[in-house]
Amino acid sequence: MITAVERVRAAYTRIAQVDRPEVWIGLRPQADTESDAAAVDAKVAAGDRLPLAGTVLAVKGNIDVAGLPTTAGCPAYAYEPDTDAPAVARLKAAGAVVLGTTNLDQFATGLVGTRSPYGTVRNALAPEHVSGGSSSGSAVAVALGIADIALGTDTAGSGRIPAAFNGIVGLKPTFGLIPTEGVVPACASLDCVTVFARTLPEAEQALSLMAAPSGRARSAPAARRPGPWRIAVPELGQLGRLDTGWTEAFEAAAQRLADAGAELLPVDLAPFTEAAAMLYEGAFVAERYTAVGAFIDGHKDSPDLDPTVAGIISRARDIPAHQLYADQQKLASLRVRAQASLGDADALLLPTAPGHPTIADVAADPLGVNARLGRFTNSTNLFDQAAVAVPAGDVNGLPFGVMLIGPAFTDERLVRIAGLLTSPPLRLAVIGAHLSGQPLNGQLLAVGGRLVRTTTTAPTYRLYALNTLPPKPGLVRVGGGEGQGEGGGEGGGGGGGEGGGGGGGEGGGEGGGEGGGEGGGEGGGEGGGEGGGEGGGGGGGTIEAEVWQLPAEGLGTLLAALPRPMALGSVELADGSFVTGFLCEPQAVDGAHEITSYGSWRAYLATLPRP
Amino acid sequence: MITAVERVRAAYTRIAQVDRPEVWIGLRPQADTESDAAAVDAKVAAGDRLPLAGTVLAVKGNIDVAGLPTTAGCPAYAYEPDTDAPAVARLKAAGAVVLGTTNLDQFATGLVGTRSPYGTVRNALAPEHVSGGSSSGSAVAVALGIADIALGTDTAGSGRIPAAFNGIVGLKPTFGLIPTEGVVPACASLDCVTVFARTLPEAEQALSLMAAPSGRARSAPAARRPGPWRIAVPELGQLGRLDTGWTEAFEAAAQRLADAGAELLPVDLAPFTEAAAMLYEGAFVAERYTAVGAFIDGHKDSPDLDPTVAGIISRARDIPAHQLYADQQKLASLRVRAQASLGDADALLLPTAPGHPTIADVAADPLGVNARLGRFTNSTNLFDQAAVAVPAGDVNGLPFGVMLIGPAFTDERLVRIAGLLTSPPLRLAVIGAHLSGQPLNGQLLAVGGRLVRTTTTAPTYRLYALNTLPPKPGLVRVGGGEGQGEGGGEGGGGGGGEGGGGGGGEGGGEGGGEGGGEGGGEGGGEGGGEGGGEGGGGGGGTIEAEVWQLPAEGLGTLLAALPRPMALGSVELADGSFVTGFLCEPQAVDGAHEITSYGSWRAYLATLPRP
Repeated sequence: MITAVERVRAAYTRIAQVDRPEVWIGLRPQADTESDAAAVDAKVAAGDRLPLAGTVLAVKGNIDVAGLPTTAGCPAYAYEPDTDAPAVARLKAAGAVVLGTTNLDQFATGLVGTRSPYGTVRNALAPEHVSGGSSSGSAVAVALGIADIALGTDTAGSGRIPAAFNGIVGLKPTFGLIPTEGVVPACASLDCVTVFARTLPEAEQALSLMAAPSGRARSAPAARRPGPWRIAVPELGQLGRLDTGWTEAFEAAAQRLADAGAELLPVDLAPFTEAAAMLYEGAFVAERYTAVGAFIDGHKDSPDLDPTVAGIISRARDIPAHQLYADQQKLASLRVRAQASLGDADALLLPTAPGHPTIADVAADPLGVNARLGRFTNSTNLFDQAAVAVPAGDVNGLPFGVMLIGPAFTDERLVRIAGLLTSPPLRLAVIGAHLSGQPLNGQLLAVGGRLVRTTTTAPTYRLYALNTLPPKPGLVRVGGGEGQGEGGGEGGGGGGGEGGGGGGGEGGGEGGGEGGGEGGGEGGGEGGGEGGGEGGGGGGGTIEAEVWQLPAEGLGTLLAALPRPMALGSVELADGSFVTGFLCEPQAVDGAHEITSYGSWRAYLATLPRP
Repeated sequence: MITAVERVRAAYTRIAQVDRPEVWIGLRPQADTESDAAAVDAKVAAGDRLPLAGTVLAVKGNIDVAGLPTTAGCPAYAYEPDTDAPAVARLKAAGAVVLGTTNLDQFATGLVGTRSPYGTVRNALAPEHVSGGSSSGSAVAVALGIADIALGTDTAGSGRIPAAFNGIVGLKPTFGLIPTEGVVPACASLDCVTVFARTLPEAEQALSLMAAPSGRARSAPAARRPGPWRIAVPELGQLGRLDTGWTEAFEAAAQRLADAGAELLPVDLAPFTEAAAMLYEGAFVAERYTAVGAFIDGHKDSPDLDPTVAGIISRARDIPAHQLYADQQKLASLRVRAQASLGDADALLLPTAPGHPTIADVAADPLGVNARLGRFTNSTNLFDQAAVAVPAGDVNGLPFGVMLIGPAFTDERLVRIAGLLTSPPLRLAVIGAHLSGQPLNGQLLAVGGRLVRTTTTAPTYRLYALNTLPPKPGLVRVGGGEGQGEGGGEGGGGGGGEGGGGGGGEGGGEGGGEGGGEGGGEGGGEGGGEGGGEGGGGGGGTIEAEVWQLPAEGLGTLLAALPRPMALGSVELADGSFVTGFLCEPQAVDGAHEITSYGSWRAYLATLPRP
């Protein structure tokens, strides 16, 4: 593994490369972070176990990092904390190096990423679109590969909307699971520290390093009813207007959960939608005035204040307490309705956002566009739920994301369910020793493989009996019309090729075949380079194939154990679809015996003498 | 996905193929299971969501399956249950089809797999070795790929020892998590239903489908202290004598957990070892007499009784109750010592067994060999702990396994930790667009990749600028001496190759380069087949490579998205090691421009005109 110092250097190289200065409010000097990294490297060298050694971290600008000003996105508000927030301290203790503090919608008030005097944070993948907020800089730093993990906060969706818009994971843990000491409050009774990462395991690791019972007594969730995951999915009509293509993407995500074995349940989204609307329209926004209202009143007309944010919070000053009481009662009844509607579902599946506006869209209607963005996220914290936002494909070239929302303290369960979306089973076409009943079939079973169907390749492949021990088939694409120009080097010389075939016979039976195999190898060496087409009659044929379904990690494990000269690539099947399948290195077919005409590795083996 | 009927047929084909009749006590007629499978298929066709549709299940012969005799490994004991045990019923309700009941050490008394009048169950991988017991047939049915999942039971290790010996996963859940109604008791206060599977996710899915609070109130484990996983690992000296090579394999497993970020803590194994010895040496064995003692007394000298098992249980008749009181007090104090020794460790890592005897070893010393096998497993249920046994490599051609043991109700946590052993991070060598700073590097970051080091390939590769859009490098091995015979078809024709390079320049810059790329493609088509060696000066060179570490599922995901003509195979690095890396289909290099002499894709790109 590269050292922490090397990792930090790579981060600064990337920062220079991407040219997104608006991501940062307090980017630390490279010398300082390298010094921190060198200390991490020294600890590792001394035998310390630091699970985050070599990890670089970005911290949202409303979370204390000792030595950097905490701005909350407002220069005039800045103060210099003496100590790290506990969340930051725990990640640093595990070996993470803090790159700096990131830009945000001021006072964490907004879901757009444009409400900051430090500049509008552009989307990582589509710069004319918003990054999402309020944790804009943290999400973009991770999405661009600058930071490995980043901290955000989430009151109404600030840790999830930017994850969705930048194609990364956003973990909004149960309220109270990560301490909020050292965090500038937005709504103190709702604020959660969140994690951004590119993968679920990275996010979950950071959560496990930061989580600790603090203030709130940890109460475990009730045991779930046995059976498959039960996922509540609302009727499409209840989702309201979504961007073009997003309805289909949401349905596809639900279908992927169903395909992975989950049971999809109906749910009435109305109480969620009503609660969401209360966050800014009702009295709850007064808690933001409690946090920073006096400061804003004292800095009227300061250029350091974002006018949209200042307006929202100022207007909350006059909300009467009796309205807050009424709203709290209304929220409690909505929560009862929401829980009844969810029943015993393990999680609620929702799009993370209803759409992805451009920066120009937000400029044209700052309040309206922002309000629309929180339609699905606003209710989560009000209902004391946990959530994880994950990428679920692309729509029109932009990331699409969904959330899984569940009861407090079901964080780990939500991550497991979300894993069904981020790592669905993959498919692999096998043509030789991995076929059912063949010697290496057990490798597929061992990694959780299941046979999906039996078919053939497209009629554009040649099959060779390679001069390997044990003998293996080599599948080589010969293309369509444009493939006619090739041929040189392919097609084994007669004698060499046949010798290899003989070796294959013994090996196919029990795995031996030493003499024959060596003879084949020599023959191949001689035969190679004699030029083309000897065995390539017709240019190619169809080859028997089985398609297996494997967990993604199983396919990775299989690949990592693959010996030369085998390779895995993309193979065209009879129906014109492409699937990952077995190929081989070019060198391997030199001098190998072409057996395309058998149509199948099994058919070829059947013709060989049994040992 | 293939239908449940097809899956069932494949299971019977496999049963015939492996010729291990001793695995089964009550193998159902194929017509019956096909009928069950057809019913599953019909339900799926009607829209039912069955997470285990297409899954075949084997059930240990001491667990009730309606319509089959429950034998507990003793023909004279057999009865025909009217209903399935709840564990079986829940898996069937989820779509699993029961193949039959499996052989076991009689009355689940033994860890060897030889104590059955239905025959000795041979190891799945090494038939002269024991399968392990008592859940012998269930483990072997899964290891041989006949069944997808199987049920066992575990009182002293019966659900874990056979997993270790056959290279599969054995999940022994918290006592009470899976109901034991319909299970012939061994020691009713300790017995657990267990799951065998080839992978952790399959085992965990089955557990989640069967688990339900029954009898025992579910109490969540205490919150863990934040930080990395803390794994208690005993001093090697406390493990006692292990088979040759097993100490090293155990240390390697501990190191893999450490490499994955876990903190290894010392632990005093003495209380565990003392408790383990009490299981058969002390008064607890009397509970086995409670279960089946009267039956055994009534069938003295019956050939249906295994003499070793009958002797153990008969001798327990005369154990006095006052000894049981004393042993219970002693166990309670050992448990206090064990918990104190574990401290706040998340799990205890142990070899699953101290060694793997042959069938002949057991015949020579039936009691002694068996007693040794339980050294690490016997204490788990006595201490009310959960455990998961997973494969951890091979030693001398036989599987080696370890256990992770933790407090009651930490089952899911133990599975997560065990996943660090079954799916450690993998490595990938990249040479082109995935290099740091190149356009596709983000794909590595997106799946959790981390740069490990920068190096080069061995000096046996040629690099080509392929005629792809965007342009990509093609790495082709040219071997050592035996590689001299090739060359035909490799090496691009001059004009065509250069045209492709021009296209590559534009694409490398920003991804466009349409016109140039097409020109290159045409040129490549013409140049192909002109025969060899034009650009192959010296037979090969070293090519700049970066080695990245990826989660296994990340590597699988990357492979599944790989477009033609790219492939992944095994690449030799400068230090002679082999690592998974980028290759390409043979067809792709026809007519491609050889750029080996640049030594690096980046160096080649740097020579191209910027658009």
